[in-house]
Amino acid sequence: MTVLILTSEEDVTADMVVARLHETGTPVMRLDPADLPGKAVLSADFAHGDFDGHLSVNGHVLSMGGLRSVWVRRPGEPAAHASHPSPWLTAETRQALYGMLYSAATRWMNHPRNADQARLKPWQLRVAHLSGFAVPPTVFTTAPRVAQQFAREHGDVVVKSASGPPPGEPGLALPTTLIGPDADFSGVAAGPALLQRYIAKRADIRLTCVGTRLFAARKTAEPGQVDGRYGDTGHSWEPVPVPDRIGKSAHEYVRLAGLAYAAFDFAEDEDGIWWFLECNQSGQFGFVELETGQPVSEAVAQWLAQRGPDRRTPESRR
Amino acid sequence: MTVLILTSEEDVTADMVVARLHETGTPVMRLDPADLPGKAVLSADFAHGDFDGHLSVNGHVLSMGGLRSVWVRRPGEPAAHASHPSPWLTAETRQALYGMLYSAATRWMNHPRNADQARLKPWQLRVAHLSGFAVPPTVFTTAPRVAQQFAREHGDVVVKSASGPPPGEPGLALPTTLIGPDADFSGVAAGPALLQRYIAKRADIRLTCVGTRLFAARKTAEPGQVDGRYGDTGHSWEPVPVPDRIGKSAHEYVRLAGLAYAAFDFAEDEDGIWWFLECNQSGQFGFVELETGQPVSEAVAQWLAQRGPDRRTPESRR
Repeated sequence: MTVLILTSEEDVTADMVVARLHETGTPVMRLDPADLPGKAVLSADFAHGDFDGHLSVNGHVLSMGGLRSVWVRRPGEPAAHASHPSPWLTAETRQALYGMLYSAATRWMNHPRNADQARLKPWQLRVAHLSGFAVPPTVFTTAPRVAQQFAREHGDVVVKSASGPPPGEPGLALPTTLIGPDADFSGVAAGPALLQRYIAKRADIRLTCVGTRLFAARKTAEPGQVDGRYGDTGHSWEPVPVPDRIGKSAHEYVRLAGLAYAAFDFAEDEDGIWWFLECNQSGQFGFVELETGQPVSEAVAQWLAQRGPDRRTPESRR
Repeated sequence: MTVLILTSEEDVTADMVVARLHETGTPVMRLDPADLPGKAVLSADFAHGDFDGHLSVNGHVLSMGGLRSVWVRRPGEPAAHASHPSPWLTAETRQALYGMLYSAATRWMNHPRNADQARLKPWQLRVAHLSGFAVPPTVFTTAPRVAQQFAREHGDVVVKSASGPPPGEPGLALPTTLIGPDADFSGVAAGPALLQRYIAKRADIRLTCVGTRLFAARKTAEPGQVDGRYGDTGHSWEPVPVPDRIGKSAHEYVRLAGLAYAAFDFAEDEDGIWWFLECNQSGQFGFVELETGQPVSEAVAQWLAQRGPDRRTPESRR
């Protein structure tokens, strides 16, 4: 039974997990969907009343019946490396590859259907609230007056992007930014703004969830620091215990969202409350493991190597 | 309680359903996501421990608490009509709009999460088989030898596109085409091919499923006809009863796929067997209603107008 990892060629995080899988003798196939068709060959056969499929990469063949789990790490666009790439070839190749994988009775980290949903920030806040996390007051709006009212009601607020920085090269940094109630909100009419009450934090928290295992790390913040991703505070990530209530909420969140892996970001305020900021279903864990020594890649490898019934195939999805 | 219809401005199929909803006095809001931001204004508020959101189109305001159902008909790309459109503005607007709608406790026809999955053809065949439909032997492959073996085993086979015709203007017709075992299959290595055993059919069948209601229509085929979508046979669509076994399988299919609406295409062979060809989760029904008189748009309107608990909100999804 083989673990299939969908990722691009250069991916040190995947390398860490592959090393763990090799240690335990678990067979692994690594595929960049960009290499299909070409380096990789696919056949999915619905010819005998049942289904079987095969993937072949560099002469190694993986049968869908021997598929243990799929890790959707950082896959390229299907057919992107084809000699004559086109949007249509990508669409056809996506159909063949993901249609075949969806048909297999396997476990996913994470199923693309649930991953796509989990990327929606407003929905994250809703699920976080339902899961019992503390969520800072937040508004998404295209109405300048609503944005201004929100800023007046809450005093200091931060503005940030919901979808991440704009694509393109060179990449544009778009840090979360503190603004006051007297800012000019007229531009909100041209594009939705995400405003959130500023949490004066004493630390950033990263909570990594792998199946049912939780790893919390904490990094002390500088007074007044807004976006921990930019600039060096001189502090490093340190392991911290997961409070019971937080653990319960995290398990509830991933259950509602249908995720096997999730990376939660919190701001810890002066009272020690962890405020939910976001949940990234494909968040990096390399830097946490490096600084804290927490065995996240081992946990990922163990989850992928597990045998067990699939809970999300067509047969049993409801 | 209002029905929200996401569709572009020119959509006669939506017009038919809107007319039915008006007859019963059900409030309707029609929104093209391409008009957001601009003609439409949005605010989603997570500020008071709970969630509320508003959509405003041409001065009419819809609160998420008053949202009865969402019909994802033929929505434009978010922000496509903005004065300065960009991929990033589209991504931010998609986050705000769909993130807000996913957060609402409402009923969907169809939820985009399930719609995306339901578009994958290989997965359709798998679910069709699990639902008890007769499925013609089919292979998706990038291996010329596999394609050739399949054609030799089954004699006459058809080749068709999995994702539909290539995008672009003018549109390219890509009818399902009959080929023999001696065809040149070398091109399969450059792009996945979908080969299916040719079903010699005496009729095309369209089965439209709206909630639990089923409407079957039949159109006599010319001998040797392959793709009923192209060319005029002189026959028209006529209503036919839904065989019990087919009805049972259709209900099982939409249950497994999580769909409220589905349009199934079958080929009826000389023995009267309905062979599953595909299930289009957004298939047209205007032509069926026009030729058969079957009240599909009324059924869609009734489904959308129903009140009832949402079975797919985060609260209760599992």
